[in-house]
Amino acid sequence: MTGAARFEVVVPPPADGSTRARVGRLTLPHGEVETPTFMPVGTNATVKALHPDDLVEVGAQIILANTYHLYLRPGHERIERLGGLHRFMGWDGPILTDSGGFQVVSLADLRVVDDEGVTFRSHLDGSLHRFTPEYAVEVQMALGADVAVAFDQPVPPHSSSRVTVRDAAERTHRWAERSLAAHTRPDQALFGIVQGGLEPDLRAESTRRIASLPFDGICIGGLAGDETPAERAAALDVAVPLLAGDGRVRYLMGLGSPLDLLEAVHRGMDLFDSVMPARVARNGQLWVPGGRINIRNERYRDDPRPVQEDCACLLCRRFSRAYLAHLFRAEELLAYRLATCHNLTFTLDFMTGIRAALRAGTFPEGLPALRSRAARPITRAAAVQPA
Amino acid sequence: MTGAARFEVVVPPPADGSTRARVGRLTLPHGEVETPTFMPVGTNATVKALHPDDLVEVGAQIILANTYHLYLRPGHERIERLGGLHRFMGWDGPILTDSGGFQVVSLADLRVVDDEGVTFRSHLDGSLHRFTPEYAVEVQMALGADVAVAFDQPVPPHSSSRVTVRDAAERTHRWAERSLAAHTRPDQALFGIVQGGLEPDLRAESTRRIASLPFDGICIGGLAGDETPAERAAALDVAVPLLAGDGRVRYLMGLGSPLDLLEAVHRGMDLFDSVMPARVARNGQLWVPGGRINIRNERYRDDPRPVQEDCACLLCRRFSRAYLAHLFRAEELLAYRLATCHNLTFTLDFMTGIRAALRAGTFPEGLPALRSRAARPITRAAAVQPA
Repeated sequence: MTGAARFEVVVPPPADGSTRARVGRLTLPHGEVETPTFMPVGTNATVKALHPDDLVEVGAQIILANTYHLYLRPGHERIERLGGLHRFMGWDGPILTDSGGFQVVSLADLRVVDDEGVTFRSHLDGSLHRFTPEYAVEVQMALGADVAVAFDQPVPPHSSSRVTVRDAAERTHRWAERSLAAHTRPDQALFGIVQGGLEPDLRAESTRRIASLPFDGICIGGLAGDETPAERAAALDVAVPLLAGDGRVRYLMGLGSPLDLLEAVHRGMDLFDSVMPARVARNGQLWVPGGRINIRNERYRDDPRPVQEDCACLLCRRFSRAYLAHLFRAEELLAYRLATCHNLTFTLDFMTGIRAALRAGTFPEGLPALRSRAARPITRAAAVQPA
Repeated sequence: MTGAARFEVVVPPPADGSTRARVGRLTLPHGEVETPTFMPVGTNATVKALHPDDLVEVGAQIILANTYHLYLRPGHERIERLGGLHRFMGWDGPILTDSGGFQVVSLADLRVVDDEGVTFRSHLDGSLHRFTPEYAVEVQMALGADVAVAFDQPVPPHSSSRVTVRDAAERTHRWAERSLAAHTRPDQALFGIVQGGLEPDLRAESTRRIASLPFDGICIGGLAGDETPAERAAALDVAVPLLAGDGRVRYLMGLGSPLDLLEAVHRGMDLFDSVMPARVARNGQLWVPGGRINIRNERYRDDPRPVQEDCACLLCRRFSRAYLAHLFRAEELLAYRLATCHNLTFTLDFMTGIRAALRAGTFPEGLPALRSRAARPITRAAAVQPA
């Protein structure tokens, strides 16, 4: 444990076992984070289309930046020379950098995984690179986020064979120990990643192994992929009970639709991240209570109402659906900022509502109401479909 | 005169004739405008990449919107139904709409000019349209800006024959009278446009003709095109002295580089507009005192300094050249907003400096200092060159 992250459970789950949801407070070098919460993703040291002041306004307490992208461009050493990631991007709040494992596997043009690490080609220019656990940690120490994450090998949960899942999980465990050994920055927390796919015994074993190591927090990896919600719930129902007596924060990597977040909170998760709310926003999908609006639909061109009546975001407090529809048709840059502010506000307001219900002790009973307010989940295919 | 625009000269030019520059106050339905000033261009009812709050912050007192673009999309009748242009775009300050004449001639795919009007094809979908002076005024009344402009026929000043210039000017004069007759909105001012190219007698005749009509302001059109600065100065030296006893505001259409603005103020002009500061910003050209920075240059990737030390804009008060260079390389949307805020702040601060010199009575002597602070002019070709 580095001591750079302190986690307290402020409202524990009820003793009746009706939910594992809880309210927590994660204290990091750059501030406190109330959990459960969602971390907007600033891939290239900017949450696409937003200024850091927008992040404050949408209610972001902590953001995520991508180690793989920043390593490739502008380069971690450059960011370090310029005073670290916080100063570089003008955001003084908490930041978490992922390990790069997911991007190396999903984005890089070529990848060869061996026990030592991963060799891959940059998706930008085809240049050859190699990440080892030690190097992924070195890159993250240079970036200087509040939280770094151990290097892992994620695999698609639903479509991977048991042998593939087992080998990747075992490698992830060895890499976890090497990541810990390599990490020497006392002002930066280090989280470990549980793998194990959808195989209950492998997921349980991975949870025990990672939880046995002195990480500052526990990430659940290898989900939010091609699994069904029921498969994801089953995997969480294996992993989280094993962490019941563990005092650390739990972070489910890559989940973004409000309904999915709600179900994962119910199963005991505290932190989330995803590009989804922002990405679908840039495609013109606006989340509203109980559903969503495709602002490119003809019917909105004459609609004087705000996208969401009870929303105080940068979009809704000044502009009409008709104006946003016009901006999208004209491909005006303001469209992307306004839509992103709205979907992130919706997501973070939704998390605030969950915390309020937990504080008020109305959470398990309030689930149906929260579910009906959640934007309907958008399939992964729909989310990445260009407009 | 509609009475919707009131112009007072607050600091008249000195009696010694050393400059025709003056400070004025233009009072419009949505606010007061101190002149000389520059109007950022919101082509599609948005100044590209900016929020209306950004316009306040960069110091914009009045903005311009394009009649041609808004007529085609989203449509002037739609904007009228939605409560007019101010409400539509969430900007409560003064707005001027141009007449559409320049865009019809320069952007539309086909144009046939006859004495009644102009037939043209939309650059968006090839559909056929027709503007007459009456219809251009009707469209602008529906948009509901503070200031509308009479429909005119601009021609490229340097490359047009004398006959072409003469015919276009005479048509513009007939259209000016028809525009006046068609304009019936008492809460909207109407400005007339002087044409006449670079031919001194035609420019003088056009100035006399337009000034004889009851417009609320006088636009100088048909410049800021392919003429040299000396040719432009000569044309202004013909037109402006003829307006010496005229109490109306003078607007030179289409000029945007600070040095050009300075010389035109010196020759007695009050208002300006151009897409140039914002367009070059989106290409990575940042204006700084006495020069400019191409942020795509390799040398800025490690530069921790702000783009301009003494600038308080959204860009300079928080971010380094290195960060902006990164955002441009990564094609991140924040880059365009930050760069646009900077160049508009630079331009409007520069106009504020001119007004201060005029108020302090140091203007003609202060010209060399102001000239050395002006960003070096960027040629039209460079301004529109893609990055």
